[in-house]
Amino acid sequence: MIDLRSDTVTTPDDAMREAAATAAVGDDVYGEDPTVTELEARAAEAVGKEAALYVPSGTMGNQIAARVHTDRGQEVLADRKSHVVKYELGGFAQHADLQVRMLETDRGVPAPEQVAAEYVAEDLHRPGTGLLCLENTHNARGGLAIDPEKIAAAADAARERDVPVHLDGARVFNAATALDVPVSDIVEPVDSVMFCLSKGLGAPVGSMLAGSEEFVEEARRTRKLFGGGMRQAGIIAGPGLEALENVADLEQDHENARLLADGLSEVAGFDVRGPETNIVLADVSETGLDVETVLERCRERDVLATAFGPTTVRFCTHRDVDRADIERALERLAAEF
Amino acid sequence: MIDLRSDTVTTPDDAMREAAATAAVGDDVYGEDPTVTELEARAAEAVGKEAALYVPSGTMGNQIAARVHTDRGQEVLADRKSHVVKYELGGFAQHADLQVRMLETDRGVPAPEQVAAEYVAEDLHRPGTGLLCLENTHNARGGLAIDPEKIAAAADAARERDVPVHLDGARVFNAATALDVPVSDIVEPVDSVMFCLSKGLGAPVGSMLAGSEEFVEEARRTRKLFGGGMRQAGIIAGPGLEALENVADLEQDHENARLLADGLSEVAGFDVRGPETNIVLADVSETGLDVETVLERCRERDVLATAFGPTTVRFCTHRDVDRADIERALERLAAEF
Amino acid sequence: MIDLRSDTVTTPDDAMREAAATAAVGDDVYGEDPTVTELEARAAEAVGKEAALYVPSGTMGNQIAARVHTDRGQEVLADRKSHVVKYELGGFAQHADLQVRMLETDRGVPAPEQVAAEYVAEDLHRPGTGLLCLENTHNARGGLAIDPEKIAAAADAARERDVPVHLDGARVFNAATALDVPVSDIVEPVDSVMFCLSKGLGAPVGSMLAGSEEFVEEARRTRKLFGGGMRQAGIIAGPGLEALENVADLEQDHENARLLADGLSEVAGFDVRGPETNIVLADVSETGLDVETVLERCRERDVLATAFGPTTVRFCTHRDVDRADIERALERLAAEF
Amino acid sequence: MIDLRSDTVTTPDDAMREAAATAAVGDDVYGEDPTVTELEARAAEAVGKEAALYVPSGTMGNQIAARVHTDRGQEVLADRKSHVVKYELGGFAQHADLQVRMLETDRGVPAPEQVAAEYVAEDLHRPGTGLLCLENTHNARGGLAIDPEKIAAAADAARERDVPVHLDGARVFNAATALDVPVSDIVEPVDSVMFCLSKGLGAPVGSMLAGSEEFVEEARRTRKLFGGGMRQAGIIAGPGLEALENVADLEQDHENARLLADGLSEVAGFDVRGPETNIVLADVSETGLDVETVLERCRERDVLATAFGPTTVRFCTHRDVDRADIERALERLAAEF
Repeated sequence: MIDLRSDTVTTPDDAMREAAATAAVGDDVYGEDPTVTELEARAAEAVGKEAALYVPSGTMGNQIAARVHTDRGQEVLADRKSHVVKYELGGFAQHADLQVRMLETDRGVPAPEQVAAEYVAEDLHRPGTGLLCLENTHNARGGLAIDPEKIAAAADAARERDVPVHLDGARVFNAATALDVPVSDIVEPVDSVMFCLSKGLGAPVGSMLAGSEEFVEEARRTRKLFGGGMRQAGIIAGPGLEALENVADLEQDHENARLLADGLSEVAGFDVRGPETNIVLADVSETGLDVETVLERCRERDVLATAFGPTTVRFCTHRDVDRADIERALERLAAEF
Repeated sequence: MIDLRSDTVTTPDDAMREAAATAAVGDDVYGEDPTVTELEARAAEAVGKEAALYVPSGTMGNQIAARVHTDRGQEVLADRKSHVVKYELGGFAQHADLQVRMLETDRGVPAPEQVAAEYVAEDLHRPGTGLLCLENTHNARGGLAIDPEKIAAAADAARERDVPVHLDGARVFNAATALDVPVSDIVEPVDSVMFCLSKGLGAPVGSMLAGSEEFVEEARRTRKLFGGGMRQAGIIAGPGLEALENVADLEQDHENARLLADGLSEVAGFDVRGPETNIVLADVSETGLDVETVLERCRERDVLATAFGPTTVRFCTHRDVDRADIERALERLAAEF
Repeated sequence: MIDLRSDTVTTPDDAMREAAATAAVGDDVYGEDPTVTELEARAAEAVGKEAALYVPSGTMGNQIAARVHTDRGQEVLADRKSHVVKYELGGFAQHADLQVRMLETDRGVPAPEQVAAEYVAEDLHRPGTGLLCLENTHNARGGLAIDPEKIAAAADAARERDVPVHLDGARVFNAATALDVPVSDIVEPVDSVMFCLSKGLGAPVGSMLAGSEEFVEEARRTRKLFGGGMRQAGIIAGPGLEALENVADLEQDHENARLLADGLSEVAGFDVRGPETNIVLADVSETGLDVETVLERCRERDVLATAFGPTTVRFCTHRDVDRADIERALERLAAEF
Repeated sequence: MIDLRSDTVTTPDDAMREAAATAAVGDDVYGEDPTVTELEARAAEAVGKEAALYVPSGTMGNQIAARVHTDRGQEVLADRKSHVVKYELGGFAQHADLQVRMLETDRGVPAPEQVAAEYVAEDLHRPGTGLLCLENTHNARGGLAIDPEKIAAAADAARERDVPVHLDGARVFNAATALDVPVSDIVEPVDSVMFCLSKGLGAPVGSMLAGSEEFVEEARRTRKLFGGGMRQAGIIAGPGLEALENVADLEQDHENARLLADGLSEVAGFDVRGPETNIVLADVSETGLDVETVLERCRERDVLATAFGPTTVRFCTHRDVDRADIERALERLAAEF
């Protein structure tokens, strides 16, 4: 079975398992787990922020960020297809009483004029804008790698209005790799960033939330509220440290994605978009089949992918599939659907 | 001063003041105010619903409806320019933990295909759609009178998916008047409707929330949570009963709005839209002035209007301005800005 | 029928009805209703605060105060029998995400040592104390008139810890009357106070929320969120101004309550507590009947009262029952139950 | 350093580290991690419930349970010293809009009469009781082992009123050990139970939330909302499986606690309570020192403990301290403070 559903399916390699087995640990709720502490320092450094916090999932990182940045009853500006809007169970409303102003954007990032136009100054009738939330790479739009200038333009428009900016950078290292820029260039203009260790970087569990020291201190308390305080978390932070070493491997995932895309575009009825990173979207309307049937037929051929809307299939490359796997997958999918 | 800011500025007439002075009253929290009880019955009848509830404001009526119809953590489908989204302080998130899926629509009402496309079935990652919220007339789009078929088409698409439908009918009697249909034709396909006594109908205070008996019973309890339970409310419900008699007068407001629009379209730099009901929007970009300056110059000429976005002025006719007032207003505004 | 259920049943007198009929009005959401403005000024003056806000109910006043004073996720200290805890549908949790630390107190007011002991400084695990909420007179404990020193002692203990203090003074004029002190003496040590126009003072609708100008400004915005913004509210604010003239009449209600208590204590099986103000509680366990039966037999004798817990009946005097009514009620209740 | 602050400081042993290194894993958000699945099955079996869910912390388990069992705006009955009330940042209000009715209880568990008396049937003014939350062992009261009859009596009183019951059983295996009963006897009368793998059982990370299949299915979705969905969680679930093997070792912790308590009661100024399980509380008022000074002097002697209120120190035994450690600790603490 070649599993192209998501890079979340990556399993820990031997180095990670070894790290789990040998990690120095302590009670991280008391701030005494040296491995977690090291991971937080290394992660902060990796993205060029003052501090970072280890959280069990990317969703928790994004949700904590929204709560810390805002006051109750404010608005968040976000692309209407962003993960925080579509796949986090409406958490901004549920956890933080925030209204999301869903925007139609180019490549998932509002233009500065759009930020200016959609910004609301708090008044008697209107919730004020309290956060701009960006995403890079942009998952639902096909793993788009958003360049630093575009991020900076949106972020600057927000910060000029005293609106903080959070970046859902679940796959921000994929973006940096694809654009061939340091990740800190992408992250510099935002106040906080979340990135996942458990996707393309291959760690079994966990994400990092980075920002100023003050932000991270408040995020730490909010993590407790969410039930995200863990004890001897070094056992999973150790593999997380290993994951930080895997950034350079992402280029291979992207190359595999391009190979996959080239092959899939030959499949009758597949209209392939991208890829810019490790995500390949194929519109399968022209097969005359619905998405579930297409996925079922892939599965019968031992290839797994994911539905992404009513006519779109998402294929995602990652470190647990190599070039040969991609070639095998393409062979299996070559026949008519 | 000719006040065209809003139909909310209407002051109670003699009949209403007499009604306030003579209303039979009791403690409405105990359900013992005969005037409120009569108003609730008459209002339910007027819109063709089983029951109705008197609330201090339209905002409270809409917010109560959203809470009663939904479970926490669901999504609401609503036009992005609707009042519940723009002018109720993000209440759906704050009061009911709901995420609003803001839609770009034609005339403020999603097409049935849009309802189908934006509907989300609850799953592990996604909040399910719990409410469709419509608005008629549609204020921010210029007092558009939405015809019953368009409402019904959207509502049917929702109800087929077991999604209840609420209508913010703050000015639904204006819509019925403009379309020359019984208001019950507009309201029939929705589960609940809020309409205001305090706008064009001229009552000093209050709105009605109507729906099934079961809905209204739960709404009554939720009203208490919001602090909307009032005691001898007959004093204001009495004028509310008078207001229900004023429906036929709305036609005059619409005629005055047409007169106003015709005149305003002669003003240099004014680009007039509508009116379909009692609201006239003028884009004033071509005057070369910003909206605040235009409003200030109106005020200097003893005419009041409202800003409605960065380049738009809203004028609203109502029972406290007559044809002669409109003519006077047009004379004052005729000179260059 | 002699209605002793609550002072909320008082109906507006001729002066109030006249005030409703003749009030100067405007759109209070625009801040243009002169009668509301006057009422807010007079109410602020009456309690010795900088500013006041007219709200449709006491519940809304208390809930707005809690939201304005706190940040999300804090704790409120309150007597476990206070109205905000028992009868406002858990609003502090629902509207403001606050945890109430329910206290066992003497006469409904925590001693300063109790405030000190229950105060929590925010830390990683604990919500910090964000509000002390007091009540005077204390309804559920039998209309107790809490003297200013006791209020001040609790409030000072809170304010020393930077915890603001709100007073639910629904019947604070009854307390001032009973204690023969200016109401401002009671209210001086608290940051905000809510008092009802619609109880013993006899207004048909409404309560006042008073505090600093900054507090009231924020409260005004929060009132909009709750749907408490009303338009030509002068129609009910006018009667409210009349109600402020009725403070001196409360002494008569208290005298009537004493007469009632004396008489009720002669009734076989009635164990009467108080009264300190206009509320008389009778424990009816010794009648051998349950509360509902006792109330039913009162009703059969044309006297209405209220259940207040499983064995207690509450009788409440007010301006719509006079001494002769009390005497008649006692005659009717004299026979064995 | 002998660390008696908490059993949360236990570090994973070799078997656990081996389990981490070798666990079969998959993506648990897709339900495909065999180690997590096995742990969930084994945990459910261990407590005699249909199903169980792995969560990153006990706090998350308790908070999810409250949300799943209740509707918004209900009340929770809980002992005023319970963990959910004191140490979870007011989560019931923040996550689920619940008001906690804090009870003074005997041994941390309300008597059935108390449940009956404090139960509230939902009405127009009152939030209905939606949950009874118990705790066993009861931490803040000194690790009390509550016997099954007492739990059952409270739970039955709740369930007779259709109120579900959740048990915060963070240390429920300590209770079962101390009482020498199967843990299922304690858990049988409750609807859901949370227990920690990361305390006395020694796992590095995680807790289990168990109940009916329907309950766990809804809890799984709610876990996602909280950001508790983890990917290859087998890495920590593997050690969790090992932890389930450690139940029999808890008896040694209890014996050590008794030894510790005997010794501490000889220390001048220490007034020792308990222990019933692995927690020893000492009131240190008679030392004439404040708690922080006592803890500091312990620390100087290489013994760590925790403040538990203004005059109380908590010592907690666990698998990382043995009898010899306890003896050494007692020697160090024997000298005057």
